[in-house]
Amino acid sequence: MTTTPRFELFSYWRTSATYRVRVALNLKGVSAEEHNINLDTGEQRSADFLKINPMGAIPALIDRAPGQSSTPLTQSMAILEFLEETYPVPALLPADAHGRARVRGLANMLAGDTHPLFTPRVRKYLSTQAGFDDAAWRAWQIHWFTTGLQAVEQRLSSETETGRFCHGDTPTIADICLASIIAVMRVFKIEVAAIPNVLRVMAACEQIEAFAKAAPARQVGAPQS
Amino acid sequence: MTTTPRFELFSYWRTSATYRVRVALNLKGVSAEEHNINLDTGEQRSADFLKINPMGAIPALIDRAPGQSSTPLTQSMAILEFLEETYPVPALLPADAHGRARVRGLANMLAGDTHPLFTPRVRKYLSTQAGFDDAAWRAWQIHWFTTGLQAVEQRLSSETETGRFCHGDTPTIADICLASIIAVMRVFKIEVAAIPNVLRVMAACEQIEAFAKAAPARQVGAPQS
Repeated sequence: MTTTPRFELFSYWRTSATYRVRVALNLKGVSAEEHNINLDTGEQRSADFLKINPMGAIPALIDRAPGQSSTPLTQSMAILEFLEETYPVPALLPADAHGRARVRGLANMLAGDTHPLFTPRVRKYLSTQAGFDDAAWRAWQIHWFTTGLQAVEQRLSSETETGRFCHGDTPTIADICLASIIAVMRVFKIEVAAIPNVLRVMAACEQIEAFAKAAPARQVGAPQS
Repeated sequence: MTTTPRFELFSYWRTSATYRVRVALNLKGVSAEEHNINLDTGEQRSADFLKINPMGAIPALIDRAPGQSSTPLTQSMAILEFLEETYPVPALLPADAHGRARVRGLANMLAGDTHPLFTPRVRKYLSTQAGFDDAAWRAWQIHWFTTGLQAVEQRLSSETETGRFCHGDTPTIADICLASIIAVMRVFKIEVAAIPNVLRVMAACEQIEAFAKAAPARQVGAPQS
């Protein structure tokens, strides 16, 4: 007998923000019924999807638990905190307040300072209003991936809390954000120099099935290559 | 007798991220010794400040409590969560997990999706690499303030959890982020149309002294006007 999963996840194969939620669900062993929303054809602005999430944004997570509102949870960082509170084991944040602040700080350097600069809406503005051609967009991407990841590298290489993962020897929300940026960077076929600790942590993440099976290339809708 | 505050806050008068931390400290009645780092003269990259925070980033919060590392806490959203955990009263997050997810989601629409597009480093790239003059930068600012605030408006106007503030009738982290964006928008003398609920919430925030005294114009270093 199969049971209906508690959650419905509206997602797309290559987005960094959806990847984060997928990894957290996998790490916590929580299943979700995943629905593919094709960002490349603008499906997020279709009438059908706007009925589900009027913001037209993914990831969107609907909680089908009895008594919950049908308003979807949105914003990947808010969803990660929700999952951490609702399914505390395995913990994706350290036990001490300073450690949690460090993990959330690293996570925000990636999901907050870096990722918003690569969104489709930013690309659209730069190509239509600023005359960015493909080469200018690629230079923009390389600049901000480099800035963000080298800043994280500096912290990982100099702070004593760094372990096998960003913070100690088990994965946290910081690793999820780090892996989400590297995964998308690979989709764009971009490489950044001088980030040995970042790449070492990424390799450690990829040895965990919860990360590996969230990879963009393994999702429904990914191009066959 | 005066006691030495537990925290040192490295800040600048007009930054949105520092404003958030200042409001949270004020709401919780926690004092901090504030140090002004002049971003307009590049003081964040001075040798003296890099000794304090090698990342060259503000806000940076040093916790002088015994036994704590001298590594400063950085990233405003991580600092807000740290203050919430360390000083839980008054609560700046709702008691229920879905409510917390909504508040963090709204906060991230502002501090995550919107604010990173206005940072000095983005302005520098656009002016040096993309030929943005002052008018192009202003058009960019107006576009993203409008996009971010009208998206928040849509949620505030349609979701039943909205009250006097973004979520119910007491201020939360969402209100802190909303006010931080409006405060900076005013520094830039930009106005956005069709955001009545956003402005109503801002007015409610400004009636609270913890918000009012965090205003950019009231900080050390602000221009006299």
